[in-house]
Amino acid sequence: MYYPMFSQMKKMLGQLDKWLETAEAFAKTKSFDPNLFLGFRLAPDQFAFARQVQTACDTVKLAASRLSGKEAPTHPDNEQTLEELRARVRSVVNYLDGFSAKDFEGAAGRSVTQPRWEGKTLSGADYFVEHAIPNFFFHITHVYAILRHSGVSVGKRDYLGPLSFKQPS
Amino acid sequence: MYYPMFSQMKKMLGQLDKWLETAEAFAKTKSFDPNLFLGFRLAPDQFAFARQVQTACDTVKLAASRLSGKEAPTHPDNEQTLEELRARVRSVVNYLDGFSAKDFEGAAGRSVTQPRWEGKTLSGADYFVEHAIPNFFFHITHVYAILRHSGVSVGKRDYLGPLSFKQPS
Repeated sequence: MYYPMFSQMKKMLGQLDKWLETAEAFAKTKSFDPNLFLGFRLAPDQFAFARQVQTACDTVKLAASRLSGKEAPTHPDNEQTLEELRARVRSVVNYLDGFSAKDFEGAAGRSVTQPRWEGKTLSGADYFVEHAIPNFFFHITHVYAILRHSGVSVGKRDYLGPLSFKQPS
Repeated sequence: MYYPMFSQMKKMLGQLDKWLETAEAFAKTKSFDPNLFLGFRLAPDQFAFARQVQTACDTVKLAASRLSGKEAPTHPDNEQTLEELRARVRSVVNYLDGFSAKDFEGAAGRSVTQPRWEGKTLSGADYFVEHAIPNFFFHITHVYAILRHSGVSVGKRDYLGPLSFKQPS
């Protein structure tokens, strides 16, 4: 289920790009600077909007890299505008476009670590289910929630994106 | 990956139960009625807190039922207190305790529908990845976000819960 989940996360980054477009249009309608969104947050000690977008992007990008062994593009977290954030999102979508199911064949058995874990490791399977997936959805949902809290008109369908429905026979 | 993902969602409902305990303690410290939380929301046209909790619970409960064929307990959505919401969460955790990996052996090939889909269906695999998982995390993250926005001191570790770390050798 690695590749289907990465495809889903890629699809949702595509949806996130559309939310940012809607946010830009909302700012224009209300005559405020759309780049104000980057500093909005739900609590003073939570990540601001820009960092929620960056972290959603990094979570899926680094997970794909760690679970496949394919090098990830670097992003210096210097976005100053909504347009630059959208470019960041699209850059990660492009990176994910380069994967196939075969890239994740050994994913479950990999050993994953990161500096803040001080030498501790997670198996690829545990890392994906316990860390990468929950964190991705945490940050992308905070992006959505900050937009909704700010009055931007996005809805659950914009969150989920199109579903692979089969028509009744 | 069905059973590991359901185990993860069950673990996170256990974390949610702890957040509600923290919210109760916060209300006591600040001398307000903890049941006020049930009506809090991030936007006037979003679900209130109680319904976010109910929907997180229902999403995983109904997904487990639809993907296994095992009947789910019913919950009439009549919770009036934080304590009753916690009982709802624990009831779903208990339901999920009754599953094993074997229950989901045919999950991917099942056909899933619900009344609002007007006869359209999703395969079990698509339903899980495109609908159940994103919706579960959407609603549980909104529960968390409403608490953080209200000043309750929960953090990312409370969101993720304990990780299956291996110590450095």
